Amino acid sequence: MSRIVKLAVIPGDGIGREVIAEAERVLDAVTADSEVVFEKTTFSLGAGRFLETGDTLTDADLESIRAHDAILLGAVGGQPGDPRLKDANIERGLLLRLRFELDHYVNLRPSKLFAGASGPLANPGEIDFVVVREGTEGPYVGNGGSIRRGTPQEVANETSVNTAFGVERVVRYAFDLAERRSRRLTLVHKTNVLVHAGGMWKRIVDEVAAEHPDVAVDYLHVDAATIFLVTDPSRFDVIVTDNLFGDILTDLAGAVTGGIGLAASGNINPDGAFPSMFEPVHGSAPDIAGQQKADPTAAILSVAMLLEHLGLRDEAARVQRAVEQDIAAREGTRRTSEIGDAVIAGLQA
Amino acid sequence: MSRIVKLAVIPGDGIGREVIAEAERVLDAVTADSEVVFEKTTFSLGAGRFLETGDTLTDADLESIRAHDAILLGAVGGQPGDPRLKDANIERGLLLRLRFELDHYVNLRPSKLFAGASGPLANPGEIDFVVVREGTEGPYVGNGGSIRRGTPQEVANETSVNTAFGVERVVRYAFDLAERRSRRLTLVHKTNVLVHAGGMWKRIVDEVAAEHPDVAVDYLHVDAATIFLVTDPSRFDVIVTDNLFGDILTDLAGAVTGGIGLAASGNINPDGAFPSMFEPVHGSAPDIAGQQKADPTAAILSVAMLLEHLGLRDEAARVQRAVEQDIAAREGTRRTSEIGDAVIAGLQA
Ligand SMILES: CC(C)[C@H](C(=O)O)[C@@H](O)C(=O)O
Ligand SMILES: CC(C)[C@H](C(=O)O)[C@@H](O)C(=O)O
Repeated sequence: MSRIVKLAVIPGDGIGREVIAEAERVLDAVTADSEVVFEKTTFSLGAGRFLETGDTLTDADLESIRAHDAILLGAVGGQPGDPRLKDANIERGLLLRLRFELDHYVNLRPSKLFAGASGPLANPGEIDFVVVREGTEGPYVGNGGSIRRGTPQEVANETSVNTAFGVERVVRYAFDLAERRSRRLTLVHKTNVLVHAGGMWKRIVDEVAAEHPDVAVDYLHVDAATIFLVTDPSRFDVIVTDNLFGDILTDLAGAVTGGIGLAASGNINPDGAFPSMFEPVHGSAPDIAGQQKADPTAAILSVAMLLEHLGLRDEAARVQRAVEQDIAAREGTRRTSEIGDAVIAGLQA
Repeated sequence: MSRIVKLAVIPGDGIGREVIAEAERVLDAVTADSEVVFEKTTFSLGAGRFLETGDTLTDADLESIRAHDAILLGAVGGQPGDPRLKDANIERGLLLRLRFELDHYVNLRPSKLFAGASGPLANPGEIDFVVVREGTEGPYVGNGGSIRRGTPQEVANETSVNTAFGVERVVRYAFDLAERRSRRLTLVHKTNVLVHAGGMWKRIVDEVAAEHPDVAVDYLHVDAATIFLVTDPSRFDVIVTDNLFGDILTDLAGAVTGGIGLAASGNINPDGAFPSMFEPVHGSAPDIAGQQKADPTAAILSVAMLLEHLGLRDEAARVQRAVEQDIAAREGTRRTSEIGDAVIAGLQA
């Protein structure tokens, strides 16, 4: 009897559709002979859907997505400055809503400089770390507001909400991950300025560290962390940090390891109460959409993370290996689908 | 009759003292024959003072500093993890208190890749931009708190406070600066997540932009901005951004342009109601303090910014030129004072 995995696919907007097409082909190919069967449902969500129907993510969409085992997402967001999207915040209403409603408290973002990939650094050294970004709290909660909007007396506030519950669970995840890697963990925050939130993060990391005496623990202010990401990225193994700092660091990390065309991510609910969601770090890039110019590698690597998350280790490893081989052999520009073809060919090897 | 400038000097802690010693020597040398006389008062403030007296910045200190025309600061902060400093937040109590009390609403941080300086990028191209960081609002206001501290039910919040008044004045400063430079201005924020604060920043930039039709205006999310800082830093001319994003971007910019040993900054009250304060971007680096290993260049360039701010254009240009010559001619390691000597020798040229 074969195992059935119900997969919700959200291609989204712009290049999201093109890269997800390749990611799906790779998924189909790698599971063709396996006993696991992926039952896919495609959800048409994003700026495109909003322009057609005025909906971003309905309760019915959410309920239906929630009934799946996992989610594969491309990218969402329309043309910047499109007046018809002025009042739609697709990012908050769709992407962040999914992360919050499905309690994706671990936003997992590996950063690895693959052989053959070239980034902007002259002497990058070996780069292989993972950012464990908190996904359900911090400045992302949407607890903001303004008064006297649009006047010279406007005051606009944003509140970062942090709970010991939320911080502890993601910190524990990061320590467990560090135990399985090189046993080095770096907390990144800004404790000298954000003394309340930062102080709590620091205290919880110190407490959990006491249970992991074999993990070397380090602390960096976020500003200093950006310096080390470009001057000494090899120093990092596992970084644990809040939602906003994690957002910033992972884009920078993506750039340093050869561009966000290669950066995959998982929005994970480790408890398994809700489906986890895998997506490339990059956005919908409307400027190059529909031209087969996008690199589907980040989406394909997100499939590898998805497979790994579902316990399909062999399949995950085959995708990962095929991508690494493809990157190592790169030369010239290829169309989106050509990169998909090459990775699929590599699966056989 | 000579013009008298009353200068408050705060060497601070660690390498702050060593770099300020050189900065003062350069200041003395460049003003030796000029008609302006600097009357200096040295304030002993920082972790050292706290350990001796338990005071961080008394009201009397503040009043006395306020009576000066300008401030030159080295760096403050003790040994990380020093248990005696556990409850002292020197950064908030001293550095940030000065910025807030003296209404330093423009935190000006030039980023230039000098000939001869080498950063981590393989192909940096030309780098010459200025970050105009807001200095008196945002997540730095200290409007945070926590309940049930130290328990598993702790909730710790931090509120970013942003006013149209505060944003408009710094945005106007940035546009004026862009008019005197290459007429390109980039707003950096995270409008898709921090919709209230980000929305107000965007609206005000759009409004002020309408008065400056000759300035090309661009917007980047902070995460994307870090990517461009390492992949295409030449695109930037003037960046205007909030207090926290400015903190992060300027450390990264410092690294990209050859290290924060070269990065100067000004905390400016453009209205002249309060003395402006000039300081290197780097910290007190207790690990290398007292060993004559620190590079005093950032402190010396901060003197150039101070001179420029006081309208002493010729003196500022002489210091700037001497530093640039010194950087271009660098080879081998030199002691802190040797770099000071070299810059002073270059002043004659
Ligand atoms: C699109 C945006 C809301 C999102 C974020 O800030 O988390 C993106 O930048 C990311 O990193 O996944
Ligand atoms: C020391 C710290 C409070 C300060 C800041 O965050 O502003 C520093 O990083 C800076 O950039 O001047």
